[in-house]
Amino acid sequence: MGRVAILGATGYTALELIKILLRHPEVEITTLTSRQEGDRRVADVHPTLIGRIDQPLENLEPAAVAGRADCVFSCLPHATSAQAVKHLLEAGCRVVDFSADYRLRDPAVFEKWYGQPHQDPGRLESAVYGLPELFREQIRQTQLLANPGCHPTTAILALAPLLAAGLVAPHDIVIDSKTGVSGGGRTPKPVFHFPECNENVSAYGVGTHRHTPEIDQVLSSVGGSPIEVVFTPHLIPMDRGILATAYSLPVGNVSEEQLMEQMQKFYADAPFVRVVEHLPRTKETTGTNYCDVTVRLVRGRVLTFGALDNLIKGASGAAVQNFNLMYGLDETTAL
Amino acid sequence: MGRVAILGATGYTALELIKILLRHPEVEITTLTSRQEGDRRVADVHPTLIGRIDQPLENLEPAAVAGRADCVFSCLPHATSAQAVKHLLEAGCRVVDFSADYRLRDPAVFEKWYGQPHQDPGRLESAVYGLPELFREQIRQTQLLANPGCHPTTAILALAPLLAAGLVAPHDIVIDSKTGVSGGGRTPKPVFHFPECNENVSAYGVGTHRHTPEIDQVLSSVGGSPIEVVFTPHLIPMDRGILATAYSLPVGNVSEEQLMEQMQKFYADAPFVRVVEHLPRTKETTGTNYCDVTVRLVRGRVLTFGALDNLIKGASGAAVQNFNLMYGLDETTAL
Amino acid sequence: MGRVAILGATGYTALELIKILLRHPEVEITTLTSRQEGDRRVADVHPTLIGRIDQPLENLEPAAVAGRADCVFSCLPHATSAQAVKHLLEAGCRVVDFSADYRLRDPAVFEKWYGQPHQDPGRLESAVYGLPELFREQIRQTQLLANPGCHPTTAILALAPLLAAGLVAPHDIVIDSKTGVSGGGRTPKPVFHFPECNENVSAYGVGTHRHTPEIDQVLSSVGGSPIEVVFTPHLIPMDRGILATAYSLPVGNVSEEQLMEQMQKFYADAPFVRVVEHLPRTKETTGTNYCDVTVRLVRGRVLTFGALDNLIKGASGAAVQNFNLMYGLDETTAL
Amino acid sequence: MGRVAILGATGYTALELIKILLRHPEVEITTLTSRQEGDRRVADVHPTLIGRIDQPLENLEPAAVAGRADCVFSCLPHATSAQAVKHLLEAGCRVVDFSADYRLRDPAVFEKWYGQPHQDPGRLESAVYGLPELFREQIRQTQLLANPGCHPTTAILALAPLLAAGLVAPHDIVIDSKTGVSGGGRTPKPVFHFPECNENVSAYGVGTHRHTPEIDQVLSSVGGSPIEVVFTPHLIPMDRGILATAYSLPVGNVSEEQLMEQMQKFYADAPFVRVVEHLPRTKETTGTNYCDVTVRLVRGRVLTFGALDNLIKGASGAAVQNFNLMYGLDETTAL
Repeated sequence: MGRVAILGATGYTALELIKILLRHPEVEITTLTSRQEGDRRVADVHPTLIGRIDQPLENLEPAAVAGRADCVFSCLPHATSAQAVKHLLEAGCRVVDFSADYRLRDPAVFEKWYGQPHQDPGRLESAVYGLPELFREQIRQTQLLANPGCHPTTAILALAPLLAAGLVAPHDIVIDSKTGVSGGGRTPKPVFHFPECNENVSAYGVGTHRHTPEIDQVLSSVGGSPIEVVFTPHLIPMDRGILATAYSLPVGNVSEEQLMEQMQKFYADAPFVRVVEHLPRTKETTGTNYCDVTVRLVRGRVLTFGALDNLIKGASGAAVQNFNLMYGLDETTAL
Repeated sequence: MGRVAILGATGYTALELIKILLRHPEVEITTLTSRQEGDRRVADVHPTLIGRIDQPLENLEPAAVAGRADCVFSCLPHATSAQAVKHLLEAGCRVVDFSADYRLRDPAVFEKWYGQPHQDPGRLESAVYGLPELFREQIRQTQLLANPGCHPTTAILALAPLLAAGLVAPHDIVIDSKTGVSGGGRTPKPVFHFPECNENVSAYGVGTHRHTPEIDQVLSSVGGSPIEVVFTPHLIPMDRGILATAYSLPVGNVSEEQLMEQMQKFYADAPFVRVVEHLPRTKETTGTNYCDVTVRLVRGRVLTFGALDNLIKGASGAAVQNFNLMYGLDETTAL
Repeated sequence: MGRVAILGATGYTALELIKILLRHPEVEITTLTSRQEGDRRVADVHPTLIGRIDQPLENLEPAAVAGRADCVFSCLPHATSAQAVKHLLEAGCRVVDFSADYRLRDPAVFEKWYGQPHQDPGRLESAVYGLPELFREQIRQTQLLANPGCHPTTAILALAPLLAAGLVAPHDIVIDSKTGVSGGGRTPKPVFHFPECNENVSAYGVGTHRHTPEIDQVLSSVGGSPIEVVFTPHLIPMDRGILATAYSLPVGNVSEEQLMEQMQKFYADAPFVRVVEHLPRTKETTGTNYCDVTVRLVRGRVLTFGALDNLIKGASGAAVQNFNLMYGLDETTAL
Repeated sequence: MGRVAILGATGYTALELIKILLRHPEVEITTLTSRQEGDRRVADVHPTLIGRIDQPLENLEPAAVAGRADCVFSCLPHATSAQAVKHLLEAGCRVVDFSADYRLRDPAVFEKWYGQPHQDPGRLESAVYGLPELFREQIRQTQLLANPGCHPTTAILALAPLLAAGLVAPHDIVIDSKTGVSGGGRTPKPVFHFPECNENVSAYGVGTHRHTPEIDQVLSSVGGSPIEVVFTPHLIPMDRGILATAYSLPVGNVSEEQLMEQMQKFYADAPFVRVVEHLPRTKETTGTNYCDVTVRLVRGRVLTFGALDNLIKGASGAAVQNFNLMYGLDETTAL
């Protein structure tokens, strides 16, 4: 039975993580931290947990956490997370980090997009990007797992099979992504105020969204040459779900059937990616760890679609999938 | 052409008011005030107004406002509003006050429900409650109009005809009200954060909602004996609309037909109350100044229903309807 | 391992039932029937099931079903369900019936509210109403379980503790219920068309809703005297969830604290009813088998609130809870 | 005062059209037709119109309509509309056709995308495409106006200024469009059933959507060379609104500032297109005839955004704007 701690347990991803871990047969949640709510029980902050977990939120230092947990899930914001993770790793914990701190390999890229120097650049090389469909073997071995962003997971799963096989070009890739509001977190802001975002749709973070370099990096690695995508997220009036619509150029005379076959082959052993015939709908993935993908060829352009639940496969489900791999468990346990 | 000012022009009711007044042939908006946004244009705060009104928000004292306007609409919060209204009235302006400050006749009732002494108790007697369907003649004459709350308007319009005719009892009245989220205002709060209130319904303010004494007072006046209602509002995941379901006891052997006839008779000359055969749906009033009402008799209990748009007939539409009456214009102008 | 069949497997309750049973360690789904879709796989009709269950929909007679299942869950419509259930019981199956066919004890009441004679009146006495919080022991023994309606479950769980203790009066009970749209089923109808019910709220079935006699019957049984409630459901623009707001009259000089204590005592051993301090919110029960309840005393009237997920505790979760009891399993298995 | 008729008055676009025309000072609605509801009043079908218009729906032949109207708005489906329009034109009426029948100039293109031969190919040359921002002068003169599709209006208004100025390339244009559900019409279908499309997002009509050739045709005309766009619509859980995100390639070394200046210049005299600095949000256009547009330059690609209300500027508002031009009225009358 693994003892786990969750840092920053008041947000939406932490809530989903707790719900999944509560049904995980190999896990005991020993510690939940919060800097601001460190005097309440977690079920006071998330009343859906009443009767399911009777755990306090505590304002603890990394050293105290390390003494209580084998594996720590950090749901802290970027920069803050790295500060804690450093200590946890040194104390021997394995870490699944939900923040962006260990996703990018190049500290200069981190600094450019996040506007501050990296707190722990020495570990960027050894951290593993937690997309099991691409990096399953590295995940099994790692002490430090960088859990991917929700938009990157969707876009990468939709594009990787075709880039890996050289069926689409590494240039001129456009990713138009649509996300529900829970991706914006639990802190009230005008843009997430119900009367503002309900019955509304708009783009945001155009040209500046921090998931962009993450997509670039992984697709470059998969495609074998430097890729810079145009990534445009949109806010949709729904709780959960991301749909990525990716536009790329086919290489040579490839048919839609060949593209589908490559997708199916690529994900033949991936328990959580479903290559579907129909156009994916986010709702069919809600509450699950599945990502549904498909491909179409329209007027000489390749359209790939990916749909998932941003809080599950886009965050906490993926984290548990990674945890399972890190601990030699069945990849699908509790998912 | 009447010169009007709007105090507190950054909220949702002010926005709706501006949109209505922009199509009002007898009105010129000369002044918009805001304490916090007093350096921006109103269309910067409400971008839907871009190209429709090119007016600055100004942080002005009442004296300055009085010099520019014949009629002032105050969308300030309670207590703050009375402070400004006092000066405006003394300067000779007519005032339509959206706050609760002048709705209750008894300063002790105000103090009990609002937790503070009234700022201007001497004017409570002369202020007129702005429900034209009940107080049309008083409205025409008044200098100080208290624009009703959104829940009270809905509940009162549903119940008043039957109470006035003595067809339902003045005791044991239960009002179960359902409202969209815009009624909570434009300031982000956890309870109005999209992922919290979307896909959710709950009661709020049970036993403590400040619209309660307002309903009591008006129904008591209509019914001719003291009435204390049980009023329970609920938050519904939609932008706009209030549905009030009111439960009361019939007096004597009244039939559903008689109840409907009384409703029709009572509102025969009311341009904005529609007595409908079907169960009212808020959406059919959205964007309009209508309140739809009907009545059913179920197992010896009278059920009356009222539906309206909380920002129009429940606030800004009613304000303009009152303004029209105060200035001798056609009651329906711009509505 | 129990072999189970589901009749009428294309609806929303069947889908939720399948999802729960897929994680039930003691269950094997052997058979899924559909009259209209009897040539497709269930995952074609419910694509969220792709990769999770590879079962055909079959158009089978009861005899064929009985040969394949120990327990049959019938999600057929009323009247149709009784026709099948009769044969299944005779063939020795145990049955959990989602329809209203075996909920009411008196065939005359059934005929009055459903407009047709009952198909199997002889079994109404022996069928058990599947509310474990009230009828746990009977449920353990029964061959024929009538799974409760979603509105009745919510209203009864909110009112039963106080009626059972004689703390509220058996007369003058008003139940104002609010439900999400999935309760209306999977067949498209104008009233459930997105642009009609989104951003809208209205009452429906006023005075005629078929859940009324069900609530009457169970509350009468609990309260020990004949009860006729005024029950008014409302349609809310959300997928899932029911909130019941029940208004009743206190008996004697009872305090809010005493009412809460009675609720807590009554549900002390009920794993799926949470007596909460706050006003229940449906969202905190979504996807769970919990019903959250609380009570308030307002101006001499008792307000009880119940919130649940209409497809889980209001249907399929309750069905599995009942199944667990019928088969001597832990009541919470898979829930 | 112009007498107008509306054919097919039961749908959402007809409802919006009626609401606009009711405040139009130069219009009298004399006739509303419906084949299926030809025995009810229009306010029975659209209860929001109760008290606002007391007009029957009639099942009339074109000849009868022509005798009662100077201008006919046809909200009939394609193919059906052309059958009626032919007769109305011959009888001397002017026609604003909401269907796709007269939008495409080439009958072969119509046949390819609509799967049937055109009913009235001889008039395709003379019909005018009703986008005032591009074809204002032709609109003034025409007897037959083809009111544009909602997606094409959004996409074309976002792209036309830059194509017209040669600032973006006519090839490699991708249009990713997001629309609310009212665009799908008033007939219930599984895909528009609330529990299916709420909390969901997906693409639809990929590669086959009939608005594609319409966009091709108009952009080709504007750009001066044949254009074939990749157009992908998505269904969003909201009532109204379209956001088009268009991706194109800049020509030469153009800056974002130059692109914005061209947009502003192009729409300097267009009363209903607002070139905004921020990323457009559909909600800021809801209920208005505005289309908000802007442009960004991201990683060497031009992103243009257009937002509008699909039932107003995307349908009925545009129709009245066109009507105003056709009759020499101020373009903004009633809008």
